[in-house]
Amino acid sequence: MTTTETDRAASDPAGAPSARTRIRRLAENARYDRAALLAIVDATYVCHIAFHDGGQSHCIPTACWRRGEHLYVHGSNGSRLLRVLQSGAGVSVSITHVDGLVLARSAFNHSMNYRSVVLYGSFETVNGDEKVAALADFMAHLAPGRQGQARPGNRNELAATTVLRVSLDEAAAKVRTGGPQDDAEDLDLPVWAGVLPLTLVPGPPARDAACNVAAPDYVLQWKDRTF
Amino acid sequence: MTTTETDRAASDPAGAPSARTRIRRLAENARYDRAALLAIVDATYVCHIAFHDGGQSHCIPTACWRRGEHLYVHGSNGSRLLRVLQSGAGVSVSITHVDGLVLARSAFNHSMNYRSVVLYGSFETVNGDEKVAALADFMAHLAPGRQGQARPGNRNELAATTVLRVSLDEAAAKVRTGGPQDDAEDLDLPVWAGVLPLTLVPGPPARDAACNVAAPDYVLQWKDRTF
Repeated sequence: MTTTETDRAASDPAGAPSARTRIRRLAENARYDRAALLAIVDATYVCHIAFHDGGQSHCIPTACWRRGEHLYVHGSNGSRLLRVLQSGAGVSVSITHVDGLVLARSAFNHSMNYRSVVLYGSFETVNGDEKVAALADFMAHLAPGRQGQARPGNRNELAATTVLRVSLDEAAAKVRTGGPQDDAEDLDLPVWAGVLPLTLVPGPPARDAACNVAAPDYVLQWKDRTF
Repeated sequence: MTTTETDRAASDPAGAPSARTRIRRLAENARYDRAALLAIVDATYVCHIAFHDGGQSHCIPTACWRRGEHLYVHGSNGSRLLRVLQSGAGVSVSITHVDGLVLARSAFNHSMNYRSVVLYGSFETVNGDEKVAALADFMAHLAPGRQGQARPGNRNELAATTVLRVSLDEAAAKVRTGGPQDDAEDLDLPVWAGVLPLTLVPGPPARDAACNVAAPDYVLQWKDRTF
């Protein structure tokens, strides 16, 4: 057990990292296992960020990637999202994978299989070498092995881009797997019960018409990526 | 052009339904076409809801479905999410489909293909016949043709469940499709450029072990669903 895990266990009897990440609803689906949580983060390309600005809530999807114990996002300096996040406003970020529909024998026991992470925190700006390294990690997340192949950003491109990160310390995962949980008295009803699975699947790479470079390994292996 | 479209065009020269749904960032990806927006909503099972409560922002994923010009969600009466939404708090709801990674010849021209909708509004509680009809629509969204097959909710189940809806009036879609947009001077770089597509794909239905009912049409046809 790491120090972080000890602290986490100490801060909440259920093992949640904080009171606001303790999962109350369907708590049996909560997963405080760190490796499971990081795997959910690593399986996504997009997160949703909730923030409050101008007296109202906003929910904005944006690309993301993980580097160590932080979730990173980036964007153009001028975007409202990044300006608000740079102010250090408290945010909540969510990542969700839908893994299937769970059809139960009764309407109200229908459910979904999913993996999700919700975190609370504040973004901080990443600069200098750390900014360059974070963007290299982003490329590695998109296409492992492509780092150093595409033309790297020049000074202007780098300066026009903001990179931000938020700690994954205050994050909690929720996972549902398996079949329907019907009431005992419904088990003999003559209705189909089971799971209709859903998977995010890589499609055949589509080379740009003006490109005649042979597919590198990360393109050939795209079909094997799992989410 | 419908009345709604006329109003929309009148309220914003760019065709956005309101100032806060006018897309500023990568505005060339904005889609104010109503049919395209509704198709993005209909292709999802989950949305992310941003709301402000207890002095902080929250971003919560939840199941959703469309009925007419509203997006519906449901849940247990006791959930914090639903209690806050029932208070009429201003929310933002986002739906996102990731369709692929766009690998450009330069690092900073990398992108993603996606379809997303962001809406602003307030939820209202749905009761009585409208509640029952909305839940039937939810079932039809999950498994078209299954309505009336599973045991319907009894009085207690229905009473313990809250159904809410938010108008899609103030919603905007953003879509990116196609290959990389490289700078002219990068076009001859010897680096692979193109799209790595991603698709949400139905997997083989998994019948519950305790069920021996033959697969109905909506299970047999699951493999043909597209998102």
